Parts: sequence; structure tokens; C-alpha cells
Amino acid sequence: MKNTYGDLISLTIFGESHGPAIGAVLDGMAAGCPVDEEFIAACMDKRRARGDGLSTARVEADRVQILSGVWQGRTTGTPITLMIQNQNTRSGDYAKTADLLRPGHADYTAYAKYHGFQDARGGGHFSGRVTAGLVAGGAILLKALEAAGVRISTHVARCAGVSDTPFALDDPAELEKQLDALKANPEGLALLDEAVRQPMQQAIRAAGSEGDSVGGILETAILGLPAGVGEPYFDSLESKLAHIAFSTPAVKGIEFGAGFGFAEMRGSEANDPFRVDETGRIYTATNRNAGINGGIANGMPVVFRTAVKPTPSIYKPQQTVDYIARKNAELSIQGRHDPCILARAAIVQSCAAALAAADLMTIRYGEGWMTRPGDYRRQEGC
Amino acid sequence: MKNTYGDLISLTIFGESHGPAIGAVLDGMAAGCPVDEEFIAACMDKRRARGDGLSTARVEADRVQILSGVWQGRTTGTPITLMIQNQNTRSGDYAKTADLLRPGHADYTAYAKYHGFQDARGGGHFSGRVTAGLVAGGAILLKALEAAGVRISTHVARCAGVSDTPFALDDPAELEKQLDALKANPEGLALLDEAVRQPMQQAIRAAGSEGDSVGGILETAILGLPAGVGEPYFDSLESKLAHIAFSTPAVKGIEFGAGFGFAEMRGSEANDPFRVDETGRIYTATNRNAGINGGIANGMPVVFRTAVKPTPSIYKPQQTVDYIARKNAELSIQGRHDPCILARAAIVQSCAAALAAADLMTIRYGEGWMTRPGDYRRQEGC
Amino acid sequence: MKNTYGDLISLTIFGESHGPAIGAVLDGMAAGCPVDEEFIAACMDKRRARGDGLSTARVEADRVQILSGVWQGRTTGTPITLMIQNQNTRSGDYAKTADLLRPGHADYTAYAKYHGFQDARGGGHFSGRVTAGLVAGGAILLKALEAAGVRISTHVARCAGVSDTPFALDDPAELEKQLDALKANPEGLALLDEAVRQPMQQAIRAAGSEGDSVGGILETAILGLPAGVGEPYFDSLESKLAHIAFSTPAVKGIEFGAGFGFAEMRGSEANDPFRVDETGRIYTATNRNAGINGGIANGMPVVFRTAVKPTPSIYKPQQTVDYIARKNAELSIQGRHDPCILARAAIVQSCAAALAAADLMTIRYGEGWMTRPGDYRRQEGC
Amino acid sequence: MKNTYGDLISLTIFGESHGPAIGAVLDGMAAGCPVDEEFIAACMDKRRARGDGLSTARVEADRVQILSGVWQGRTTGTPITLMIQNQNTRSGDYAKTADLLRPGHADYTAYAKYHGFQDARGGGHFSGRVTAGLVAGGAILLKALEAAGVRISTHVARCAGVSDTPFALDDPAELEKQLDALKANPEGLALLDEAVRQPMQQAIRAAGSEGDSVGGILETAILGLPAGVGEPYFDSLESKLAHIAFSTPAVKGIEFGAGFGFAEMRGSEANDPFRVDETGRIYTATNRNAGINGGIANGMPVVFRTAVKPTPSIYKPQQTVDYIARKNAELSIQGRHDPCILARAAIVQSCAAALAAADLMTIRYGEGWMTRPGDYRRQEGC
Repeated sequence: MKNTYGDLISLTIFGESHGPAIGAVLDGMAAGCPVDEEFIAACMDKRRARGDGLSTARVEADRVQILSGVWQGRTTGTPITLMIQNQNTRSGDYAKTADLLRPGHADYTAYAKYHGFQDARGGGHFSGRVTAGLVAGGAILLKALEAAGVRISTHVARCAGVSDTPFALDDPAELEKQLDALKANPEGLALLDEAVRQPMQQAIRAAGSEGDSVGGILETAILGLPAGVGEPYFDSLESKLAHIAFSTPAVKGIEFGAGFGFAEMRGSEANDPFRVDETGRIYTATNRNAGINGGIANGMPVVFRTAVKPTPSIYKPQQTVDYIARKNAELSIQGRHDPCILARAAIVQSCAAALAAADLMTIRYGEGWMTRPGDYRRQEGC
Repeated sequence: MKNTYGDLISLTIFGESHGPAIGAVLDGMAAGCPVDEEFIAACMDKRRARGDGLSTARVEADRVQILSGVWQGRTTGTPITLMIQNQNTRSGDYAKTADLLRPGHADYTAYAKYHGFQDARGGGHFSGRVTAGLVAGGAILLKALEAAGVRISTHVARCAGVSDTPFALDDPAELEKQLDALKANPEGLALLDEAVRQPMQQAIRAAGSEGDSVGGILETAILGLPAGVGEPYFDSLESKLAHIAFSTPAVKGIEFGAGFGFAEMRGSEANDPFRVDETGRIYTATNRNAGINGGIANGMPVVFRTAVKPTPSIYKPQQTVDYIARKNAELSIQGRHDPCILARAAIVQSCAAALAAADLMTIRYGEGWMTRPGDYRRQEGC
Repeated sequence: MKNTYGDLISLTIFGESHGPAIGAVLDGMAAGCPVDEEFIAACMDKRRARGDGLSTARVEADRVQILSGVWQGRTTGTPITLMIQNQNTRSGDYAKTADLLRPGHADYTAYAKYHGFQDARGGGHFSGRVTAGLVAGGAILLKALEAAGVRISTHVARCAGVSDTPFALDDPAELEKQLDALKANPEGLALLDEAVRQPMQQAIRAAGSEGDSVGGILETAILGLPAGVGEPYFDSLESKLAHIAFSTPAVKGIEFGAGFGFAEMRGSEANDPFRVDETGRIYTATNRNAGINGGIANGMPVVFRTAVKPTPSIYKPQQTVDYIARKNAELSIQGRHDPCILARAAIVQSCAAALAAADLMTIRYGEGWMTRPGDYRRQEGC
Repeated sequence: MKNTYGDLISLTIFGESHGPAIGAVLDGMAAGCPVDEEFIAACMDKRRARGDGLSTARVEADRVQILSGVWQGRTTGTPITLMIQNQNTRSGDYAKTADLLRPGHADYTAYAKYHGFQDARGGGHFSGRVTAGLVAGGAILLKALEAAGVRISTHVARCAGVSDTPFALDDPAELEKQLDALKANPEGLALLDEAVRQPMQQAIRAAGSEGDSVGGILETAILGLPAGVGEPYFDSLESKLAHIAFSTPAVKGIEFGAGFGFAEMRGSEANDPFRVDETGRIYTATNRNAGINGGIANGMPVVFRTAVKPTPSIYKPQQTVDYIARKNAELSIQGRHDPCILARAAIVQSCAAALAAADLMTIRYGEGWMTRPGDYRRQEGC
């Protein structure tokens, strides 16, 4: 469905940037899962703008109100409605140039689709602000996954020409340490290498001070996903993760493990050799396939990278069209904008991944009533 | 659903490599659409192996039998079942090494998921052969889309270190000529630049002769998709296209337009300026966003590239594990394999894109009864 | 999905009786449809309790707040979130007997499903109160359908042993007059025959005064549904209408047209003869099949009846079980209850029907891009 | 989706009466479930016509070919494709009267929906023959459910004015005996009371000999469904069962437990008192709610009745319309028809119920990874 993701764990997202409220309905959670409102607030805080020259000056507390589905700190098993009231709206900033299509934004496509009836104020439903609902719902899932042994985290792998240390794709123990380090990060950019923080911030602020913006790459790791999660064809782990990654604004590319690097490889390099440890546990010696074979988790870390385009809202004058007058025009965008959204987008991407992972785990476990644990058959004659 | 893609135009895929048959059920087509069995056969022929050193020696005619939903050359409006009988199966090739997990394949994940009950012969449901059903169904959609003014085509943008001319992303007229040229291509690799054919073939055969395989990049263009197709959040054009692209085997990355190149850009470069022509039609001067803003088509060509990993089946000896004995082992894969699947995968990617595009167009048109043509409102006070 | 109905027009419902708010998210509406807040309020008012001896003394204004998807009185094309804050909650009434399972209620099944984590206050998510979200969303659809020529209305066909005049199933013109009459009804029971009002009210109040409750039958008519709406197999008109009718509390039976009466008929009585009028329009002389053949609308009125069981909350002492102590016990329910819910349930049933009809119309129109108007082929050789 | 039912256990149905084949794709089964081809054949045999004056003279063996998803007698976890080739087709019977709309059939609605492109031969996709795919898939589920302790069976509760003994709704032990008795039934009508067989057969044949047909009531029992299966709102047990019951041809009504009888009851009669036995197991003393409270199974037998209209194909002359000439006409249907379909429809209804039950059980078990067995919390302060 249009604004709903997921089959068993589903999230329906709603709201416009300058409407009364934004939010989400999370359905499919079992009853009894702890809901940690402080953790939700901490996730919302990561998504929040800070007015620090790295993100927009529209700073909102984004307090999440839980309207349903949670009681006495636990899920009740019924739909969880999460609402964030909009407060700091300044629609006036947009009114002056309402007919001028902002390049890189959804203004023109919204006209094409909604015939002028869209709520265009502040980007409306297309505003990055709408991801707040995804974060609120994703935060609940991140905790539930953690309780089930699955950890998810995202860092800014590259931004404004500066690169962070990549995730240790092949080494679950080292990766675990990296996830711990990210937990301890100061507010702002999620980075593995602290030495990178200052140069990256400077490069972002430099672009901002020129009335411009920058793009970058986010890298997300899912650690502890059990082998066997994911479906063979249309509900493959890559399909589900990519689907929701591209649902978040500004993402224009995704790659798993070696990704586009596979194009330059031979099979003998691309294949990850299987090995068995002394406990009989199977793993792969390398992890170029990012923990996924045939669309299904193999127990190694799942790692993917997304290309995030520069914020389309820039102060520099741009060529565009007056939609109503049907004339070429020049536009200088006013309002408050992020010179770079990667700092804020990292938590969004973790939450998106949590939704995909939680849905696939639920689909996987659904078959429980049909099978008996320990049932196993050796392949013969195949 | 697990093996079904699409909301209104849906495709359910079935079959195992060495079972009686593979195929698909295509549902949601209107009644009265022409079904051109010759065109279906031609598409199947493009997916077919040729035993020419570029693809596997398992050559099958892959004749599509239409079991339902078509009568007197037209769709009837009911589910269209497309069946391809398996013929040239040599399960014996696999039996000898059935317990040795093939690196890069789904052998281990299938064990983890199906507890040994999977039909592992020839890769079973994970075989690239299962894409035949997608091509059969996609061929019907490609024709229906063409009748509605939407053309889709794919070429091998890069393979074995050799690059083809890229699609003319910014120039619909030039792109149209490129699609015409691809139509006229000889069998084998779909290429825009004929001068590239021989070096690319040689590079592939070289890898094959060393018992190895190569990867590459496919590039797909959708021309003529009307502005307004796609949904704002979870059913974005990128989400739907990426979802199904990752459902086809060996795809490990996707990027739209400038894709990962956006990471290195500033907003002033990344934004495509809007322009209006003398007829009042709006277009963009560049097309780095690949015809998509906010998840919705803007009328410019939609172009994306996928990273295809090298065929995991290689003759070179590989390190692996005996699943049953839980011991490290060495594996030399026998059987018949493609040193490179890009020649065959191009039509698969076009068909996948057709399914995504057709589904979104159907969702878009569903609202017809609620609106009156020409209804339009100018934004005010936003 | 669990709490979401519909494929293209979807409604996600949320909330608990004593939580902060209840409501719904309506997705899939085209942009530009008028949203009449007064009409929504009027529908909510019909569902509202009145404390008049016919319904519960828990009287709430049930003001609907629109959080998203509507701007300047029209749909924007994005999800419409409708919230109703809970106000008049008296959880204390329930606390005293919280461990005693109320017969006919979901108390026991909620324990079985949610392991004690359900929000049991006032019935929680199982409260009839949750239908308020369905009415809020349905009201918007009722108006959109009316603009498309489709009218839906429900009356109390039978209650407490007293019957109203049935809908004129066979006679669209007479049925239209009946729908007009229902529009002009005073508040309370929706009735075609005013002479029935007083005896029915008396019979309901008589049961209430004995600490008991009564059931009855609702009858719903859909007038103007175009021939061709509905799908042949799993999305048949009957399937979709029955699905959502049984989603509303207390419904335990549904029949279309002659319904269970068909069991006593012969085919020669059951078949509705086709006739053609002077304009070439085809209709049926009788309408025992309720405007549906093969799951698809034939253009005649769609009429169905639902059996509504008596309100399970009664003051009379009942035998039950203490769930925690696992002992037999006696329960005297306190709190505020309806001796009969049919007066309030009529609008709920109309809204449910509106959702099913709107979804099927949207599915039907989705095929528009594939076909050309006027395309038609005569059957030959069949 | 149009021809697909189910979220996690899904069945996609395909085929036309006189096309090459009919069948179904069953997806979502766990790997390793036994597939008993003899049992499938036995179920198909129950659905089969016998040419015995009770059903049509079109007698087909209806051999089910399994094209995918089963290997060495067990499910592989991938989609199971079931195909039945059509053999005994006599399209000529229909050609003569192809333009005359058969009353009670989908001829007119098919024209309205498919604009003349439907495959109208023998009723096409609307033929009762299409239920063969549902039976083939349902047979696999019936076995899987039985292995999980859930038994489903259907008998002809009433037909041609003759009634069978009803199911012992309130008494699981007695009901179990009734299900055993049905297993031992001779071929033909499924009946609990053998004394009823001859009079019912005679009454059916009497109608048939007059060129007419008869309707009736089927009653289905689901025994052993665990308490907690079903979802609170849109995926209620009643909703899911009714949805699929109305997807099978000729069903025009459904009621659960006391059903329409609830309309005449008071709450004190309608509520089923809870009781606890010496083992601490909770049950209800009566079972008027048919094992369902708030849409969720309470552990008591689930019993429902469907109204089946008389076969619309009758030999008696009928008034109708020539669709092409747009003139009133008289029709005498030729071909081979059932004077009564209840004998054959009983297994169809059991299979439909199996699909609904299996899907809801799978949805229910999906939450497994989020919860720990034994987690339980007493309600406080509610």
C-alpha cells in the first residue's frame, strides 16, 4: 500500500510538514514488548535539527505522543500510534515563491500527481520531516530486535569529500566494537573515526556558507540476524531493505557488501569461502556478499551503503519554471535548510533497516506451527 | 507475499530448476490487451543460454505454454498462467557434491531456512532459471506498456572491464534512438556501441577459459513514463524498481541517475533545473535525478544501473564446508555454467522494470473515479 | 494486514477505549475530493450514544480532528489521519471485576492472545468505541461515492422482535425514495416505517430495564454501483463486503438478497431474469441475487443484511470464570452499556460498505491505462 | 489481490473451464510438511461430478499434477503449483446461445467487466470448475492442520427441503465423533444422519428431472483451533472465513453459531458462560458464539453455515436478453449441469476454511521471536 510498509510488521506513515501533526501507526508487534520512551526520545533527538550550521535552523523538540497500543510501558499487541505535533512552522517563507518549482524537490511531481491540491507548505508530505514517524516506530523495533540479539547501526561513511573508517564487514567481533563506539558517539555526525569529525564538519559548513549543500554515503550494519531470515524471490533481504531505503528522501543508490565493486571482480574473488569453526558453526572467511546468499541471511553481518544526494534546498539562485505562468524563472530559496542531511539521516536509515528486518523475522517465524524443531533431512540424490 | 510481487499488477513466480516446470501467474491485466506469443518467444530467446562460451551449455528452447487468461490472442482479464517445462536436466552433476556448500550460492541459506527439505537439484528455486517466469510475464507487460507509450530497454553498460556507451539520460530524443538500436541488436550481448562487442566477448571468454566468471553493470531506461506515476513514500518509483531488481539473482547494487556520484556533488550540481518549452511542457535541463523527484516520475527518462556479481558457479577449486560432515573441504564445481550472466540478464531486468512500472501506473489510474479531468487548483497561501 | 483493510483505498484503525485517543488513517484517496467536516460530524453523531435508554450513558462528543491529508477542505492525496480523543473514561468501573471474564466479550480471547498485556480497560481495542475511526473515514468515502453516483444507507430491519419495512430490493426508484426517507429520519433508530419506531423503542427499553439487551438485523443498500465493479474470485463484492462487515463488533451473520432463503428455492425461482429497457439498458426483473452475479456488480441495487447479536454487557448476574484464580465465579457487570447497539451500528455498517465499495471501484479503474474506451469484442465460437 | 487469498499462507487461483488447464499456486508452507498425493486425490474425488443424477454429466478425473514446491513427498518451502488439465470440454454446447445472458450466472457481469474479451466458454473463470485449484491446495493444508491438531469438515445441513442433524456445536467430544462419521461416509452427499440420505437424494433428483435445481445449507466445523488465533479487527476469524466462503461460487449467506438466531435473543441467552474444568482449562458451557469472541478463537469449536443458492444452470426455459442484439429473448440452456452442487461443494468449503485457518495460525505464530514463552502479566488497575 502507498504509505504502508511491511506484511506482518507494518508501518503506516502520515503527515505534512506544516499540518497539525505527523506520525505513524506501527502494527503487528506482539504483546508484552517493552517500550522505552527515553530510547524513542533519544532516537528522535538524533534525527532532530540542531541549528549548528550542519542542519536546519528549524529546531523542534519532536516529542512523540503514544496514542494507542502501549500500556504500562509495554506493547499491548494492538496498533501503536505515534504522533508528533508540528510547532515551529513558518509557511510564510514558502508562500512568496509557491509557484516556482524548486529543482530537486517534489514540487513539480506533486503538481503532476495531485493537480494542485497537495499541501505544498514546507514540502508537505514530501518533507524529510515525515521521517520522524519512521524513527518513532523504528525505535520500538530497534529495542525489540536487540532483545532478540539483532543490533543495527549506521554511520556517515563519506560526506563532503571526507571518508570515515568503513564497517568491518568480515569481522563480526570487530564490528560489534564499532557498534559500541557509535553508541558512545557525541551528538551530530555518527562516525567511527573521531579524527574525521572536524574535517567533515568543516567541509559541510564551507558548503553551507556558500549557500550550497553536500551529499554523501551512509553505511548500515545489521549484526546477529539469524541465518535463514529472508525469502528467496520477491521478499529477499536485499529487496526489502532496498525498498524501504529508497522510501526515505534523497537516497539514490544502494549497494550490499562489495556492491558495484562486484562489477570489476571475477567469481573466484567474489565468492565468500565457507568455513566451519570448532563448535560446528558455519561462517564465511570473507563477506563480500554482505551476509546474504540467494536473498537470505547466512548469519554473517549484513552491511549496505546508500548514496544520499545533497539537500536540494540551497540558497544559491537556480533556474526553474513558474508552474502557473508556465514561464522560465529564477529562484532563490528562502527558509531554513540543512546544508547536509547525513547527520540526521543516519538514525532514519537504521530505523528503516529495523522495519525490514523485523518484518522478515516475523514472516520467518510464522511457519512455526507447521514444523517441529529439530526436523532435518539430509539431501539425497540431488 | 513471498513469491508474489505487485499490488494491482501482480506476478507470482514458481518452480525449481530440475522440477517438472517453472513459470508464473500474472494477474491484474485488463481484458483485451494483445498477447503476442512471438514477442514472448523472442524475449525468452534473449534470456536463453546459447552454449557459445558466453553462457551455459544447458540450452533449452523454453517454450512458454499459456494455461489461462488469454483467449484468441488477447488477455481475458483473469490470471495469466505461463508454464515452461524443464527438459534438459542433469541432476547427476550435482549429486556428487550435494553436501558441499557452493560459495556465493544459496546452498547454505537454503539449508538454514528449509532444514534440508529444499529441492537442491540445480539450485532449485534459487536457480537463475526461475527468472524465465518473470520474462514470460514481463514480455506481456512490455507490450502493454509500449501500447501506452512507455518503452523499456536494458544494455550491458560494463562487463569484464569493458564499457559500453551509457544511455543518453538527459536527452529523450537521443535515448529513443538508442532504444531503436538495441532492438536491432544481434543476439547475445545488448550493446549500444558495436565496437565494444568483440573486446567484451573476448574478455568474458578469457575468464571462462580460466574456469572463472565475470560481473558487470546493467543499465535500464524507461522512456515515456507519465509525470505523476509513483507514490510519495513506500511505493516510490525507486522503491518499487529496486525491490524487484534485487529479487533477480546476482544483483548487489542499484543506482538511479547520478547514483553514488551524488555523494561527491554539491546541491547546485545535483539539482536538475526545470525549463519550459514553447508548447508549455515542463522538462529538466539535466537529468541527474533520473526522471524521479520525491519518488514520483517527472516525465524525463528513468534510468538506473545495477551491479551484477560474477556467476558464483566456477570451475576453479574453492574452499568450502561439507554441511553434513561439518568439515572444511575443497570443491570443484562440475555441471554447466555461464561465465557471465549479463547477456541473459538484460531482458530479465527490463521485464522486472516493466512489472514495477505497470503496477504503479495501475495504482495511479485507480483513482480515476474520484476525480474529474481538468480539475486543478492553484496553490494559495502555502 | 491485521488492522488495515483495503488494497487501494485502505483504512488502518487504532486505539483503545480508555487510551488517549482512537482513530484511523485513510489512504489512497485522490487529491481534490471535498472533505465536509460537518458531514463527518453528522455521521459521528449517528454513532454517538445518547443516554436515552436505547444506548449507553457514556456520552462523548467524539470530535474528529484531522491531523493530515486534508487542506483547505479537500483531500491532498496523502494519508488522512483522523483522531478522536477519549474523554469520558471511567476505568474504575472495570477494575473491580478485572479478573472475571465477561461472557460474550473478548476478555478471555484477549488473555489467550496477549498474555495479560492487553489494555483491558473498557474493552480496550475490542471496544465498540474503536468503530468511531471507521465512521470518520467512512464518512469521507460516503461523500466521494455520492459524487460518483453511489449512495449507501442502512436501516434497522429488525430489533427486539419488531420489524421495519424491508428495502425495495427489486425497484431502484422506490429504493431511492427509501434512502431519501432515511436521510430525513430523526435521531436514533434508522427506520423506513415511522409506525415501527415507538414499539421498537419500547421493546428495547423493556429489555434494558430488566438488565438485559437485545439483538437484531441491519439492512444496507448500495445504489448506483456500476456494473463491472468487483472481482471474480477472492475479491468478489460479497467477499469484500462480508470481510469488513464481520470486522465490526457483534456481527455474526450476513446474507445478500434472498440469502438463506435461497436454500429453500429452486433455480427457476432463484435466477433473476434479464430484461432490456427501451434505452438498451440491461436490468433484472427481480433482484434475489442482490445486484451481484459471479462476485461482480450487475448494476441493480446491492442489498445485504447482517445479524447483530445482543450487547454482551448486561446487568443480570452471569456465570463465569476468574481468570487468575482459575475458579468459577458469578459476575454482575457494572459500568455503562447499550441495551441495544443497532441504532448506533447502522452508520458503522454503511461506512464499512463504503470502504469495500470504494476499494473495489479503485481496483476496477486502475486498469484504465491499458484499455481504450469503446473497445469491445463480440464473443465468437464460445 | 484479485485472485490471491491470504497474507502468509496464500493461494493464487487460475484457469478457465475450457482453457488448457486450471489450478493454483500455494505459497507460504514451511519446508518438510508431508504432501499426501492420495489424500489430495481423495479430496478431488469428493469435488468431482459423478453423472449420478445428483451432479453434472461432465465427469473428469481431475488428476492434480504438482509442478513445483514438493520433492520426495514433502514441501520444499517454495511455491507449490498444482495443475489440473481440462479434458472433457464441449464448447459447442455453449456456442449456440453465446449471446444470450444466462440468468443467475456471471455472463452479463463478465461482459460489463471484460468488454467481450472474457473466455466465456463454459463459464470461463466463473465456472465452479475453478474451485478444483482451491481443493488441491486446501487438501495440503487440511493435512498440515491435522498434524497441528486442527480438524475441519463440512456436511450438507439442508438441501431440497431435507435437513441433516446439525453439528454438536457445544460438545467437542460429540463433534469429534461426528467428524469421524463424516470420514467414513460413502461417496456423494456428506451427511451425519444416514437416514436422511435417501430422501435428500430423491428430492434433488426430482428437481433435476423437472429441469430445475435446488439450493441448501452447508455446515462446517473447525475443531482444535487454539485459543488466541485470529486478529481483533480486520483479520478477525469471522472476516477471514467469510471472505473466502463468499469467494466460492453460489454462496449468498453465512452465519456463525446462532447466527441470524441472535437477532431474536436477549444478551442473557446469547452470552456463553465461561467455566473452568478440573485441569484449569477454560471453556464455555454453551457455544452460541461458535468459538469466536472479538474475532479471536476461544478454543471451542468454530462452526458456520453457508447458504448455497440453487445451480443457476437449469433446463427450464428462462426469460433473458440477447446481449449483442439488445433484445429480450428466451433461453433454454443446453450442456451438462448439476441439479444441486452441495454434494460437491462440501469439500470446497472445508478447503476454504483450511486456507483461512492456516493463514491466521501463521500470522499468529509470526510474533514468536518477540516473546518468551511463559511471559504473562496479570491485569492491574484496569
